[in-house]
Amino acid sequence: MMNKHLLSGFKVLDFTHVLAGPTATRLMVEMGAEVIKVEFPPLGDVSRMLPTVKNGRSAYYLQQNRGKKSLCVNLKTPEGKEIVEALIKEVDVVIENFSPGVAARLGIGWERVHALNPRAVMCSISAFGQQGPLSALPGFDYIAQAYAGVTGMIGEAGGAPMLPMLGLGDVNTGVHAACAIGFALLHRERGGEGQYIDVSLLDVYAHCHEINIAVYGLTGNSPTRAGNHHYAICPLGLFKSKDHYLCIIALQNQWAPLCTAMERPELGTDPRYDSNAKRVEHAPEIIAIIQQWVDSIASEDAVLAALKEVHVPCAPVLTIEEVVNHPHMQGRGTVRAVQDPKIGTAILPGMPLRFSGFPHNIPLEAVHLGQNNAEVLSSMLGFSAEKIATLTTQGVLQANPAT
Amino acid sequence: MMNKHLLSGFKVLDFTHVLAGPTATRLMVEMGAEVIKVEFPPLGDVSRMLPTVKNGRSAYYLQQNRGKKSLCVNLKTPEGKEIVEALIKEVDVVIENFSPGVAARLGIGWERVHALNPRAVMCSISAFGQQGPLSALPGFDYIAQAYAGVTGMIGEAGGAPMLPMLGLGDVNTGVHAACAIGFALLHRERGGEGQYIDVSLLDVYAHCHEINIAVYGLTGNSPTRAGNHHYAICPLGLFKSKDHYLCIIALQNQWAPLCTAMERPELGTDPRYDSNAKRVEHAPEIIAIIQQWVDSIASEDAVLAALKEVHVPCAPVLTIEEVVNHPHMQGRGTVRAVQDPKIGTAILPGMPLRFSGFPHNIPLEAVHLGQNNAEVLSSMLGFSAEKIATLTTQGVLQANPAT
Repeated sequence: MMNKHLLSGFKVLDFTHVLAGPTATRLMVEMGAEVIKVEFPPLGDVSRMLPTVKNGRSAYYLQQNRGKKSLCVNLKTPEGKEIVEALIKEVDVVIENFSPGVAARLGIGWERVHALNPRAVMCSISAFGQQGPLSALPGFDYIAQAYAGVTGMIGEAGGAPMLPMLGLGDVNTGVHAACAIGFALLHRERGGEGQYIDVSLLDVYAHCHEINIAVYGLTGNSPTRAGNHHYAICPLGLFKSKDHYLCIIALQNQWAPLCTAMERPELGTDPRYDSNAKRVEHAPEIIAIIQQWVDSIASEDAVLAALKEVHVPCAPVLTIEEVVNHPHMQGRGTVRAVQDPKIGTAILPGMPLRFSGFPHNIPLEAVHLGQNNAEVLSSMLGFSAEKIATLTTQGVLQANPAT
Repeated sequence: MMNKHLLSGFKVLDFTHVLAGPTATRLMVEMGAEVIKVEFPPLGDVSRMLPTVKNGRSAYYLQQNRGKKSLCVNLKTPEGKEIVEALIKEVDVVIENFSPGVAARLGIGWERVHALNPRAVMCSISAFGQQGPLSALPGFDYIAQAYAGVTGMIGEAGGAPMLPMLGLGDVNTGVHAACAIGFALLHRERGGEGQYIDVSLLDVYAHCHEINIAVYGLTGNSPTRAGNHHYAICPLGLFKSKDHYLCIIALQNQWAPLCTAMERPELGTDPRYDSNAKRVEHAPEIIAIIQQWVDSIASEDAVLAALKEVHVPCAPVLTIEEVVNHPHMQGRGTVRAVQDPKIGTAILPGMPLRFSGFPHNIPLEAVHLGQNNAEVLSSMLGFSAEKIATLTTQGVLQANPAT
């Protein structure tokens, strides 16, 4: 049974794999949409093999695919093609993240989808977009990140760039895609046609440059990485404390309070430091003053308390272990424990979207490859049990309970 | 005149400032929504003062607020409060990103908004969410990033964490918010009530851990930063070439082709390296082999060509200047030049969402503080020119053409 939720009644035919695409449809399934994950024999979504695997179930797959139905169908057979075309006619959304051109070759490109179902919203996700000189290149998250000028903005000035060890690009590309799909469905609901949506990791990463591109455009200076202190705001950076690095930020309104907390009130009115521009100019001495103050405090908690007292933003750089066990994260459901029949308890990030009228972090279960073949084809296309059995014998449908 | 676009006819009352909130409404205005940016005297959104400022216009403000109408109203006057309450009744969406509790104190909290307009969708954006032990702390992007375990995943293993020098958290939080708003409007369009949406930087950053949290949960090992080579995939990392660092990635399918490109085909079948797990175990030697190969090639273009030939993903770590001037970025509109009456030409990231039925990167203009006071109040509330003049004299309304 589908949860009665925000998107109850909406159907998504999901040809995506691994991360960016499955993120988009994961958000939709957590809002109550019916997501039919179409997988191809023999292995299905490659993420079913990604670590950490326990009792045949990948935690990677689990995180991205709970609540989705799995239909494993061979699209290279005429019967498989017919099944997919019949399903396209029944759904609101079609989504894929193959390399550009592959969907069309598989017979599920936008022109075909639109011809079969003019009301369908289709979204293609790729590294560089569907057109342009880079579009044919193979691409993953970090590849688009490098091309978008993001990797170059991370690391010591003059040193090697650093890779953030998490899926910032793929996950947020999935959110951009879901966002576009939602608005396209809204437009359709008011009488508009289906839309084709082209979302790329490259565009998404470039979108995150809130000032770098504009600064280069206006000044001709190309901003670059600057270690762990911001190049345009001071103080904004990381300071070494007893247990953690601490991120401390003082914009104009927080500078004098920070000086008070450091028991150096005279600095708060010092004309050398009375604007952000001047502080950036004197950044090395300001950073040294703050670091010395942090060094002089017996405990990290005392630093945090002193800054909280004067409303100066400060945060410890937590480890993953600390994040998972933090009472705020647990209480809020920013992290959550979920149950899986094979893995047992898994800890996952929470659903990032919260709605007043619907429960947050709803229970959902992951399924094995092809687990919903019969259910989907009987309920959506009226296939008989005999027909499904024949298609299974013929290898048009496949299932693997060991996944 | 409003552009005929995807969201034509939708009205947004926008109390947000600086970055995360304005990103959400910027996406909506680029899709054709009417966004009324409510600003408070005397200065309005603080981003109007953020660098780089040229002829009184901030490029920071420009990037986030093109196409939005500015209504500058003093909410601390009874008349100002009346105006805002009357507008709330006329809009589809109310959005704010004050610290938790401030909106309610200003008289625009969810309970009041919902009472005034049960169909309105309201979204609050904050650093840590509306409830929980951290929610009262002052927070910015990097503060939530540190608490979410993201900062800790960036930098050399055993070295200091590094700050990515761009607005990854704020921008993507804005996208998460827009996504939630779109689906809430869709639900409403099918007869549902308005919703209150609680989006936080913390949840958004935690959402980006595609494996770290699950790995800790299953293994008890807390993943940590690992410089510029991935801790769980090999080879996936940065190699120093003649002009740039190059990101090179080979998953299982690309390992043998990479070895072929390096003219070391025997490595492609070497049992020491024939799975990702084994390659991770032997990462130092594999990284050294690839770096030596890159060193041995006369030009960077030759490295890129050799890897392209065998479909191994590879990307140069571009500078901002190179991104802006790259033919793919320009041709696709991943970056775009926009015209501003004060700044002249500015270069900005493109609209990341593209729809087949509507133009991409539509022309929009930024406005000065309070520029649309009269237009908004006459068209939406039927105020007379006299009434508007009186309210301006009384200081309920304000404008500043110098912004």
